[in-house]
Amino acid sequence: MQEKSISVRKLYEAYEKGQLKDGQDIVLMGWLRTNRNNGKIGFIAIHDGTAFKNVQVVYEAEKVDFNVVSHYPLGAALCVRGKLVLTPNMNQPFEIHSSDFTLLGDVAEDYPLQKKRASFEFLREEAYLRPRTNTFDALYRVRSVLAMAIHTFFQEREFVYVHTPEITANDAEGAGSVFTVITDGEDPINGFYGKRASLTVSGQLHVEAFALAFKNVYTFGPTFRAEKSNTPRHASEFWMIEPELAFADLDDDMACIEDCIKFCINYILEKCPDEMNFFNQWVDKTVLEKLKKVASSPFYKMEYTKGIEILQEAVKNGHKFENSKIEWGMDLQSEHERYLTEEVVKGPMFLINYPKEIKAFYMRENDDGKTVAACDLLVPGEGEIVGGSQREERYEILKAKMDKIGNTKGLEWYLNLRKYGGCIHSGFGIGFDRLLMYITGITNIRDTEPYPRTSNNLRY
Amino acid sequence: MQEKSISVRKLYEAYEKGQLKDGQDIVLMGWLRTNRNNGKIGFIAIHDGTAFKNVQVVYEAEKVDFNVVSHYPLGAALCVRGKLVLTPNMNQPFEIHSSDFTLLGDVAEDYPLQKKRASFEFLREEAYLRPRTNTFDALYRVRSVLAMAIHTFFQEREFVYVHTPEITANDAEGAGSVFTVITDGEDPINGFYGKRASLTVSGQLHVEAFALAFKNVYTFGPTFRAEKSNTPRHASEFWMIEPELAFADLDDDMACIEDCIKFCINYILEKCPDEMNFFNQWVDKTVLEKLKKVASSPFYKMEYTKGIEILQEAVKNGHKFENSKIEWGMDLQSEHERYLTEEVVKGPMFLINYPKEIKAFYMRENDDGKTVAACDLLVPGEGEIVGGSQREERYEILKAKMDKIGNTKGLEWYLNLRKYGGCIHSGFGIGFDRLLMYITGITNIRDTEPYPRTSNNLRY
Repeated sequence: MQEKSISVRKLYEAYEKGQLKDGQDIVLMGWLRTNRNNGKIGFIAIHDGTAFKNVQVVYEAEKVDFNVVSHYPLGAALCVRGKLVLTPNMNQPFEIHSSDFTLLGDVAEDYPLQKKRASFEFLREEAYLRPRTNTFDALYRVRSVLAMAIHTFFQEREFVYVHTPEITANDAEGAGSVFTVITDGEDPINGFYGKRASLTVSGQLHVEAFALAFKNVYTFGPTFRAEKSNTPRHASEFWMIEPELAFADLDDDMACIEDCIKFCINYILEKCPDEMNFFNQWVDKTVLEKLKKVASSPFYKMEYTKGIEILQEAVKNGHKFENSKIEWGMDLQSEHERYLTEEVVKGPMFLINYPKEIKAFYMRENDDGKTVAACDLLVPGEGEIVGGSQREERYEILKAKMDKIGNTKGLEWYLNLRKYGGCIHSGFGIGFDRLLMYITGITNIRDTEPYPRTSNNLRY
Repeated sequence: MQEKSISVRKLYEAYEKGQLKDGQDIVLMGWLRTNRNNGKIGFIAIHDGTAFKNVQVVYEAEKVDFNVVSHYPLGAALCVRGKLVLTPNMNQPFEIHSSDFTLLGDVAEDYPLQKKRASFEFLREEAYLRPRTNTFDALYRVRSVLAMAIHTFFQEREFVYVHTPEITANDAEGAGSVFTVITDGEDPINGFYGKRASLTVSGQLHVEAFALAFKNVYTFGPTFRAEKSNTPRHASEFWMIEPELAFADLDDDMACIEDCIKFCINYILEKCPDEMNFFNQWVDKTVLEKLKKVASSPFYKMEYTKGIEILQEAVKNGHKFENSKIEWGMDLQSEHERYLTEEVVKGPMFLINYPKEIKAFYMRENDDGKTVAACDLLVPGEGEIVGGSQREERYEILKAKMDKIGNTKGLEWYLNLRKYGGCIHSGFGIGFDRLLMYITGITNIRDTEPYPRTSNNLRY
């Protein structure tokens, strides 16, 4: 039945190309968004989820079972057969005149989505229905297109997509708590896998092995943190993109990050103009300007040490941070990052060469003996959105570090990569959900994920 | 450093376009595949993982530190600077003449990959190194391109990509054992999520809700089965593609499956000719012929009931199956499926309308009261590679079925989809790893996955 109908997107595309003909027959299937009438003429807005826009269907009271059609409720699934009418002088460029409606799916009276605007909080409770609202219709379509942007960017640049495992014996950074995977009636250690199995927090270590075979690779899959952080930016399950580049130093890494972020922004601006205009009007009135600025700005580079000096200077000059005790060696909080990118650089920037004590074991130690070749991308309005580093490729130095923190056991294979044709290589990680938040202006990760997972939240 | 060098793929692409110039300067980084010499002239084959092919580098003994260069070992990471020389009369169309080599990464003597051909079994133990071998170089590049084929197919057809959750309170079919997710020191039931949390076996139920908002959607992500099946086709973690189409009946579903499989095959044949020729030569000499036949054949449709009759007839005529007790209502085994697709239809076929007792609760009951609108795609050489169905859209019928098997609790939201503008909809599932096996001729799922997870197998 699908092929006999036309999608809303195809209708608008045909219109843009001047291919719609006045009077042509149209079969349209979708869901009713509004239904109003003046007693003689009725107007039904049909939405089918292929585009942000609706199509207006017009009916004459006399030519339909008016009492039935005029009472089709919000959310009803309809099939409409009618004639296309070009309406160059109206708000919408065309409409469908119809006297042939089929109700494919009715709506019970307890339908939770009614005409009044529902809050984000309310809609989170109805996660399975919220894609039917304007905001989430736009959001999840952008999410899908953004995922395609990621794949397109990397595949066009010869990166090989690697499905690193979700269940793992390692965890990359020891960062945060991990989930353990068990089977019924077996103990966590000697169960299904014969050893402790965790849900991955990062595919980086696994994908480094592939970078040393394919040169440029990327992961894009779910990762997990068993942290009970009840903040708008933390979820226990989220998607990560982790590219890894062989024969690449920190400058190559940053060039790739910059290209990738700009590519994603431009891709979304080009493919989702209606959705982005909606976000700009209703969610964050600065989002389009912000994105266009980032897409057209060179990304500035600043040493961490320089950043600390600037922050200390700012405090001396009276700037108040929540944490104003600025000292070399500290991990910067969001307020510090935002000060640097918003007030100092006034644009996107990499902060580079962090103290080694606050960064992961696999990052390459610089010649100063104090810092590692790490980079965080900071952007106005957000702070950090990407973290990357050059990896320690020197066997002895890496082994000493791993021995010191006691994570060599089980990671001998990872160390071996440095003995078997290892080379300078670098990579980075992008939290996909946070990137989506940044691009849409949506401020809670519970909204960007289709069915968000946070502690005590597992209804679906 | 990366941008100053050229990839092997770009070199061959430039050659194909006639853009390579005799004598042009080349900087190439990659890994040594072979190194041989006749005392005067040496030949090093460089592989960088961007293409299946190598590039031959030629050096004169007199112009390099011969003792060093001639002993660069298999797997060494090298930077080569030299001049391009077109060689129209040789096996390879061009080579690099160089006297400038830099060893970027040496290889320790205990390197597990030596020149002799390693077995699949041996390489499974060295999963982190096997992408450096011809077979796995080809395989994982095809895996990446096949993933892109999937995304391209669905995104070009207005499908919205949905990240359904990995951690779930539901499991779609009750099919097979599930993994439970816990956090340290908490019990499985009242822990992190306040209820029992499992790893998903399917995103279908979750994604149906999105189909009823976006019309056409698909998932593509990891799924899990805690089954200890020690077969070449079972892994405990694997990627699934699950499209779902609203306003679509079983015929629409089958049309989409057919288009999708043909698209994927043609995409791989076009984008990975070197890799596919390698598989055809070394792994399965019938694979190209098989794929081309499927890509150019109409997919035949046969009723399950008809299939049973044909199998019974075959037994009567003396055909021996391992299980020759053929009766209506049975679940077909691979031998039966293969008989139908290989011996009867001699091509790809859908077997449709299965007995409802052997299929999942969400499949739409046909008017005969005995069968459901399900379809399995069977292909020669393999058996089933895709399973799909029209979903039960009638609230009362679905509720009665769910009540009967006792899975209504927790799935009220799924049932509600039938009350709130529900409509005829259909979907299907493709095991991505099995599709990759089918397309490459590789017969063990432990080889198609980068780091396979099976019981008692979690080294990495």
